[in-house]
This record gives sequence, C-alpha cells and structure tokens, in this order.
Amino acid sequence: MPAYPWRRSMADVAHQAAPHEAGVAIEPVAGGVTAPLGFRSAALPCGIKAKPGALDLVVLAADAAVPTAGLFTTNLAVAPPVIVSRQHLERARGRIRAIVVNSGCANACTGTQGMEDARAMASATAEAIGCDSEQVLVASTGVIGVALPMSKVLPGIATAVGALARGAGAETARAIMTTDPFPKEHAVAVHVPGGRFTIGGTAKGSGMIEPNMATMLGFITTDAQVPVELLRRALRASARGTFNAITVDGECSTNDSLFAMASGASDVTIDERSYPAFLAALRTVSRELALGIVRGGEGATKLIAISVTDARSEDDARRIARTIANSPLVKTAVHGADPNWGRIVASAGRSGVRFDISRTTVHVGGVLLFENGLPRDEAAPRAAEHLQGRDVRIDVNIGSGGRFAATIWTCDLSAEYVRINGEYRT
Amino acid sequence: MPAYPWRRSMADVAHQAAPHEAGVAIEPVAGGVTAPLGFRSAALPCGIKAKPGALDLVVLAADAAVPTAGLFTTNLAVAPPVIVSRQHLERARGRIRAIVVNSGCANACTGTQGMEDARAMASATAEAIGCDSEQVLVASTGVIGVALPMSKVLPGIATAVGALARGAGAETARAIMTTDPFPKEHAVAVHVPGGRFTIGGTAKGSGMIEPNMATMLGFITTDAQVPVELLRRALRASARGTFNAITVDGECSTNDSLFAMASGASDVTIDERSYPAFLAALRTVSRELALGIVRGGEGATKLIAISVTDARSEDDARRIARTIANSPLVKTAVHGADPNWGRIVASAGRSGVRFDISRTTVHVGGVLLFENGLPRDEAAPRAAEHLQGRDVRIDVNIGSGGRFAATIWTCDLSAEYVRINGEYRT
Repeated sequence: MPAYPWRRSMADVAHQAAPHEAGVAIEPVAGGVTAPLGFRSAALPCGIKAKPGALDLVVLAADAAVPTAGLFTTNLAVAPPVIVSRQHLERARGRIRAIVVNSGCANACTGTQGMEDARAMASATAEAIGCDSEQVLVASTGVIGVALPMSKVLPGIATAVGALARGAGAETARAIMTTDPFPKEHAVAVHVPGGRFTIGGTAKGSGMIEPNMATMLGFITTDAQVPVELLRRALRASARGTFNAITVDGECSTNDSLFAMASGASDVTIDERSYPAFLAALRTVSRELALGIVRGGEGATKLIAISVTDARSEDDARRIARTIANSPLVKTAVHGADPNWGRIVASAGRSGVRFDISRTTVHVGGVLLFENGLPRDEAAPRAAEHLQGRDVRIDVNIGSGGRFAATIWTCDLSAEYVRINGEYRT
Repeated sequence: MPAYPWRRSMADVAHQAAPHEAGVAIEPVAGGVTAPLGFRSAALPCGIKAKPGALDLVVLAADAAVPTAGLFTTNLAVAPPVIVSRQHLERARGRIRAIVVNSGCANACTGTQGMEDARAMASATAEAIGCDSEQVLVASTGVIGVALPMSKVLPGIATAVGALARGAGAETARAIMTTDPFPKEHAVAVHVPGGRFTIGGTAKGSGMIEPNMATMLGFITTDAQVPVELLRRALRASARGTFNAITVDGECSTNDSLFAMASGASDVTIDERSYPAFLAALRTVSRELALGIVRGGEGATKLIAISVTDARSEDDARRIARTIANSPLVKTAVHGADPNWGRIVASAGRSGVRFDISRTTVHVGGVLLFENGLPRDEAAPRAAEHLQGRDVRIDVNIGSGGRFAATIWTCDLSAEYVRINGEYRT
C-alpha cells in the first residue's frame, strides 16, 4: 500500500472548502512533525503493544519550553492523560517543552492509578530532558480499562529522550497509530514578507482493534514565533473546519487531543498582520491530517465531503451537514454507489434547522438530483457514476438566502465497519 | 417464521419500563385494529406494489365520525399525505370517519401532484363511504419521489370501502407492511369499574427495500368513549415512552404518522378518573407495536432496552439513553455479544448531559460491569452470556441523585443492515 493513497485527489477536495488560502504561498515539504526547526522526536517499541517490535512510544520535544496550545475531547469520560495535559498546560502557562505519547493503551477508566501513571510519564520525560514536570504533556491511545505497564514505559521514555533527533517524523507518525491503515503526516513551508516558516504535523485516527473506541490524536509544530494567545486562537479556528469537521461514526473519544507547539526557531514572528497567512497554512496541514483520518476510518472505502450552503448561520449549515454525515442511510447508500437524494433530503429535514425543502437543491458529484421539491431522475445515472469513485461530493443548498456555509467530511458505512467493531472481544 | 417471534420475552421487557400498569386489569384479546367495536377495515391488492397480489391498500373506517388524534413526523421534508391528514384533522375538529392507507409508494417529494393525489385518495374514500372529504385521513409508505398510480388506487378505494368488515385486522396489519419481516398488531380488553373496553392497533416499521427511508405508521382504535382532547393527551403521553422511545438507526421519516380513533361503541366513557387506566392500556398496545417495529428493524437480531436512571430530569435520562441507543459502536458490540462497557460509558459521556462518571454504574443483563470509574472485568463473561440472547438490557445509573429515568429501545447493527441499505439501487 502506498503511504498516502488518498493524496491524489486531495487538492480538489481541499480547494472547495478553503478559499482562504488564496494568495498565500504554501508549498508542501518533507519531514512531517519534525519539519519545523527547533523540534526533535524519537519513536521506539517499549512493549505496550503485544506485537514484538511494534512502535508504541514517542517523545516529541522542543529545544526549549515553547508556546503551546491544546484542544481536548468534550467527552465527560475523560482519560487521565487528558486531565494531566490540561493541568500542565495551565500551570506552565502554555509554555511546554515536550509531549510524551504512547499507543496500545489509552490509560482511560483506570482511576487513581491511571492519574499516577500519567503523571509519572510526564515526570520521567521531564527528568530525562531536564525540565519541569509541568512542562510535559501526555497523550495515550489504545485499549481502555487497562493499566499502563509502567515498568516498560518508564525505561522506554529514558531511552527515547536519549534518541531524540530531527528527521524522525515518519517513525513518529507510525508509532502513534493503533489500527490506522496508514500513517498521517504533512508539512508545509510558507513564504511571507518577513521570511519563511514551516508547519508540520502528524495525527492518528479512528482505529480500534484493541481499544474500545476511536481516538483522535494530533500533534502540530511550527518554527514560526507565535504568542501563545495567538496560537490558541489559530488552533481553535483551524480545528473548526478540519479536525472538528470530520466524523467517522459520530463517536467522540475519552482521549481526543490536539496540540500545537511553536518553537520560534525561524525568523518569522506571527502578529495580527501575518495571522491570516499562518492560519491558512495551519488549516492546510490540519485538513490534510483530518481527511487522512477519515480516509483511514474503519471500513471506509470513500471520502465524502458534505457541503451545506445558503444558510442563515454557520451553525445551521454545520448542523445540517453533520446530520447528513452521520446518517447511516446516507453512508450505506454512498457505500453502495446509490444516488439516493431521498435519504439526503430526509436527514437534512430532521436536523432541527428550519428551512424550506421546496427551495432546496441537492447535487451529488455536481449533478443536480433534487430541485423544487422534486427529484430529477434522469440525472441519477451520472450521479451513480460519480459515486463509484473514492471521493464523493454532496452539496445541499437550503435556499435560505443566507450567506453561510459549512463542510463536514465523513466516510461510507460498510459491512467491514460492523465486522471490525462487532467481532472484537473485550 | 412464526408470526410473532418476539412475543415470548415481551413481558419481561415491558414490565421493566411500565410500572404504571400495576393495578389495572388488562388482558390481550384477538382482532388487532378491528378488535374494538365500531370499526371495520378492508385490505386488498390494488397494484401499487410490483408483486402481483401483494396487499397494498387499506381502508379503516369507524361507523361514524369519531374523536381522533394524530401525531406526525417532525421532519421538515414532510410528505403530502401528512400535510393533508394534519389539515383534515384540524378542519374536522378531530372527528374522523376513516383512514385510507397505501403501502408501496410514500407519495413523498412528489410536489403539487402529490398533494392532489393525497386529496384525491381522501375524496374517493369519503365519496364511497358517504362523508365529508375532510373526515378522511391519509397515510402512505413506500418508495419516495414517485407518483401514486391513481388509476389503480381510486378504483381500489371504492372496492375496499365495499368490502369493509370486522375481523379484517390481520390482513390490515399485513397490507401496511413494506419490508417489515412480520406484521405487528395487538389488542387488549380493559376492565374498569364502569365496564369493559377494548384497544387495538397495528403498526409498520422500518423497512425499505424499495423506499428510501424507514417509515413508521401506527393505527390505534378503541371502543371507549374518549373526548378528543383527552385522546390527544393520551396519545402524546403514550407515544412518549413507546413509539417515540424507539430507534432503529436514528432516522426520522417524511411520512411517520400515528393515529388513534375512539368509537365510543363500548359502554365505557373515559374521564379524568378513568384516564390512568385508559393510558395504561394504550401504553400496553403501543409498546407491543413499538417493540415489534424494533425487532423487525433492518438487519436486527436483538432487541436492546437501554435504561438510564438517577437523572435530574427525564429529558437528561432520555438524551443519554438515546445517545447510547444510536451509538454504532454500542450497537455493533451488542451484535457481536461483546460486553463493551467502555463504549457505553463513552457514548453516555458525549451525550451533552453533565454527570459524574465516577458515580456512574453500568449493568448489562443485570451484571455490574463498571463502577467507581473502573471496570469489573471478572464479570464480563456473565454479561457476554446475556448478550448471546435476543433480549438485551443495558442499565446506566448516572448517580446524579435525581429520581428521573427513561428507557429507549433499539436493535443491534449488523452487516445485514449495511447490505439491505447499501445494495438497494434507486
């Protein structure tokens, strides 16, 4: 399997949803999460995963404590690593030196022992690097309800810190995977009047052979100098249309975490004037990673971009798009390459947003299938042809005369999803 | 296949959720929707369904215009028969003579032609019976986006009205089916101090070989004399914990309709004093029909009752139960008989309701699997045994100290669901 089977058509999909990028010179570069200056990482097998030699431990470190922003799961059932990372981010006032990550065990539903273990991971990393424990964040993904094998994790951390290097982005991307079918990493260089800076990142998505739920982890680095407030704002804004605009099965994990660290090692400082360029580049990296997660969704065979336009608010548009995206009837229809406008209209209709069905149009792959409250059956064969492909576009214009729009990305629902999630035994 | 493979264990599940029935003498009787006095029905094949001889037209008539209540889909994409029925109920001030029903064509997304056709169905029925057109309600289920073959429907209606009879409940239950695997009907006799009355009903559920979405239709009759206001109140209250407490796939159709007609042909008048007994009996019939719909859900192999207790409001309890019920991860786990407490906790945690996970308990089949924020792994084998059966109970106590509870019924998610909904071609 090629590392990125989904890259080919990314440009098309990305273009549709990201008009903001226009005018900013953004070019892809190699190196992933360690492409930006000022970061090193190490990935190694420490024995959490059952498979011998499987990478399951990562340390990602900046050369000094740097401005860092974090976004976390909104699930009430929040795992110890998330609690610890939140506390450390606050206590260190957003200046973080390193993130320690393990896969194979989510350290979730593990009680006070889990809290101690998460703190111990941070302490061990801090000690090895030589920084405050509160300058270290923690992320875990994998099976839940099981304690971490700390006797393997702690020596693993010491070894990893000793092996920190630039250029370990690819191993880092692989080491955070659980059942992800392929690693996800991306980096871009951005040219602004003040110079050139880089943003890189890696993420893991929705796999769960061993674990009990999908966990999304994302790590983004940049060598731009970004004040922590601006970095937080950018991460929130960027996640809105990328990491928070994807859904595989409507589930939200106990461990979801997204981090951005800014080393300032380039000669570019981000201020209000250069913020739009920074945000555009951050969006590019985030979208690439987020769409990779959807393409790698359990049992997924197609990436579906659902855009809702002409809404009275962005929230309205997003709510309708999300309802369509989570509709099992729409997802199975796309899986079967059936241009089923009826399921799209019906799921939009139950979203809770008021709009006029008779002014609504539905396009699938650019083919008009529904207008004036009536189907256009003659167009169905052309839409069916579009649905045979791996990239599906569904456009719903709700005709409310508003200027707001939103896009949500999801994947199809296949029998393989049921097999993966039904055949697993706790 | 036995007509009601799901009847065996109904008592157990029903008992759990319906403490109100205690103290009212309710006994099952034969006859379905025409068990109550004062109603006749007819079912025939008029040629809407492709299969020759398939029943697809029903007229259900009271001997005179009688108090009638209706509940309809909340979907914005509402079908002409729903619009017409709503109008007629209002204009006739809730006094209705007959309901005409067809299966095989939902008359949805059919524009002005669809409105004319729905009105013509009502007019033809009224003319044949000899009543006002506005005293006739209309319900349709089947494929959407296709016009009704009125040249077959109209003569069919005339024939059906000529054939109206008591004792046609069983054919009526079959004629409203689309891909339902079995017919759903139930009737009970109720003994109250004032005498004896009967409530009967039939419903169809979530099938969709031909159509584009699941449609729920329900028809309930009683020979009690019930003022229309009280009937409306009872239908709303009863649907809350029955028809509105089930979910197959979280979808809501364009055509969902539930009607209750009260002929007053028995010697019992329902007033505020006898209302609780009437409501209890109405709930019994409604629950039997609603659970039949879930058991007959597409690809379903198990009925899952999800109860949430100790909540601060009924809405909170219902929202958590519904989130668990619509979780594809929980539904696939149950399908695979996996006692996956982690997916239950995680879906409860993302419901949007605030509660304390560390005070939450999860029982599956009465077996405690999660307490004090920690799993009880030793209990998993016993819970797995329970999950092998066809009736699954999931109980989540959220420990909020509130006295509110709610139960939602759903079915498991199988590869067969994906096959049914993915392989269909529009």
